[in-house]
Amino acid sequence: MIALFTDFGLHGPYTGQMKAVLYRMAPGVPVLDLFADAPAGNPKAAAYLLGAYAPWFEAGTVFLCVVDPGVGGERPALIVAADGRWYVGPGNGLFELVQRRAVTARSWEIDFKPEQLSASFHGRDLFAPVAANLARREVPPGRLRNDSDDRRPDWPDDLGEIVYIDHYGNAITGLRAATLPRNARLNAAGRLFERATTFSDCPPGAAFWYENANGLAEIAVNQGRADRTLGLAIGNVVEVVSGS
Amino acid sequence: MIALFTDFGLHGPYTGQMKAVLYRMAPGVPVLDLFADAPAGNPKAAAYLLGAYAPWFEAGTVFLCVVDPGVGGERPALIVAADGRWYVGPGNGLFELVQRRAVTARSWEIDFKPEQLSASFHGRDLFAPVAANLARREVPPGRLRNDSDDRRPDWPDDLGEIVYIDHYGNAITGLRAATLPRNARLNAAGRLFERATTFSDCPPGAAFWYENANGLAEIAVNQGRADRTLGLAIGNVVEVVSGS
Amino acid sequence: MIALFTDFGLHGPYTGQMKAVLYRMAPGVPVLDLFADAPAGNPKAAAYLLGAYAPWFEAGTVFLCVVDPGVGGERPALIVAADGRWYVGPGNGLFELVQRRAVTARSWEIDFKPEQLSASFHGRDLFAPVAANLARREVPPGRLRNDSDDRRPDWPDDLGEIVYIDHYGNAITGLRAATLPRNARLNAAGRLFERATTFSDCPPGAAFWYENANGLAEIAVNQGRADRTLGLAIGNVVEVVSGS
Repeated sequence: MIALFTDFGLHGPYTGQMKAVLYRMAPGVPVLDLFADAPAGNPKAAAYLLGAYAPWFEAGTVFLCVVDPGVGGERPALIVAADGRWYVGPGNGLFELVQRRAVTARSWEIDFKPEQLSASFHGRDLFAPVAANLARREVPPGRLRNDSDDRRPDWPDDLGEIVYIDHYGNAITGLRAATLPRNARLNAAGRLFERATTFSDCPPGAAFWYENANGLAEIAVNQGRADRTLGLAIGNVVEVVSGS
Repeated sequence: MIALFTDFGLHGPYTGQMKAVLYRMAPGVPVLDLFADAPAGNPKAAAYLLGAYAPWFEAGTVFLCVVDPGVGGERPALIVAADGRWYVGPGNGLFELVQRRAVTARSWEIDFKPEQLSASFHGRDLFAPVAANLARREVPPGRLRNDSDDRRPDWPDDLGEIVYIDHYGNAITGLRAATLPRNARLNAAGRLFERATTFSDCPPGAAFWYENANGLAEIAVNQGRADRTLGLAIGNVVEVVSGS
Repeated sequence: MIALFTDFGLHGPYTGQMKAVLYRMAPGVPVLDLFADAPAGNPKAAAYLLGAYAPWFEAGTVFLCVVDPGVGGERPALIVAADGRWYVGPGNGLFELVQRRAVTARSWEIDFKPEQLSASFHGRDLFAPVAANLARREVPPGRLRNDSDDRRPDWPDDLGEIVYIDHYGNAITGLRAATLPRNARLNAAGRLFERATTFSDCPPGAAFWYENANGLAEIAVNQGRADRTLGLAIGNVVEVVSGS
């Protein structure tokens, strides 16, 4: 299975052209859109999102990941193997949390050279062919890294920021709920949020945080949009406050 | 074939994770997005939409339906068989019109217990595995209902409301055109709309209603957006007025 | 492979119902969304977009194309074969640039009559079944055209207009970059844009134009949205100014 993780959107040509490469080079392999609206041009926020959502998938899954504001500039093109899953994309920190949290992780610098490499669409020309080959269980077309230039040791283990606004307006943070005290409160946009277990625990219109289905702390308003009601956006700082 | 009917959106992780379950558990079965923007948190409006669009599909189709504002709260988890098609989702009225209009219908309460059931994402953890099994022609993992707690006998046969705004801004009502007098006019947002057969019958900018390709009465503006021009939104009342 | 090129959007029922027809009639053939947001109701702008994006696909690809403001009115229903690729859709100019730029091109008027033809959804009822049959390598169900009523000889070879705004807010023109002088500048919305090779050539916030990954001249702002920053929209005139 190949899972796409990009900031490309679905309606225009970018996701479609990548899928054309995948369908042609890895026929019969299912392809799905995991995120097509990862934080645009923000590999750091995206890295915490990917780190939380990828482990739910079974071993062997190939993640084709493109959040790549530096396309055409200087950043390595990477393959990462972590706990049996494969990741392909730019070496701009996007895989930092996947690598850091894995029991076993290795990375390769891609040395596959496509016949035609556009300056602006490495997702289609470089990363998709590599992902297709990995999905066909071919060996990684690259050389193992001995350095750690692709790593970001200065980034925290959990990110106290909003990293994603979902379709319902819920604000997903880069904090794993399991790392937080049971009675922790979150402070964002000048408000304090208490923890709830499910939406149906709270009256309509109430704001709260809860552990979402992939383990991240998420701020929500029951039957409302947290982004508009509370003025939350990607990049907002989220502080953990001990419960009293 | 499995058709998805949700209010999840396509760009974020919800539809993608459901498809991951389906691809893994029902390999080779085509999966398509019928509605990913069903009326959010509004199972009643969604029920009239589903009731109109489902019968177009061939027998054997499995509809995986999640419009579920009460996730985590009290509502049964259902399988419905109606006229040879399968439906899986929350028992909150979403299947009322499908059941009521079917020649033959049965329903089961799901008693499959997934190993991991998140509080907020039953679409992925509970309903998708059941839909995958039904698509593989396995027996429904539940017990037949003898009661009618999942039914909504007080809902009308046709709903005089806007139930959906489409990509062009057309306003789809919950009224089946075949139930309306030939010269019926519709009253919505303080305006009367006459019936037309096709868009090309009307001058650009004209507002009218017509029977859409799935049998529902739909209010449109030729080469314009009815939602913005006329101020129409989901939930607006639509009255039928006899033609003169 | 079948590529969809429409103004239908992805969230609502139109794309899903077309895919249901394709999956049923051409099982096992991959289907992808190339554009679901082609310029709405604007076959002329759409024609330049299709003309630029289609040649990237391999021979044998079937393009199911619906930008059809005249649905239900008078316009032929077409099959076009051009340089080994197939195109199915309305004869409203949508295929003009594909035909004009092809080494070999033929067109047929579809004479397939579906059992049920809705007035407003020929994409599902007429064009999708034809596309499915072509993808199965059946003969075109139509008669070869001897006239050129479906052609638009008065349209230019390249269109000096914005024809698409992408997910990042970049403004794609109908001008092939290879037809422009190396140092050409573009004039749009009262501003002059210089050429750049890649995004990383320019400082954040700078506006420029470049040759995109499918050969069209595209106006962009590094790490910003050109549409909002510069006030660009589909239909805006773009003039070529010789470099000094």
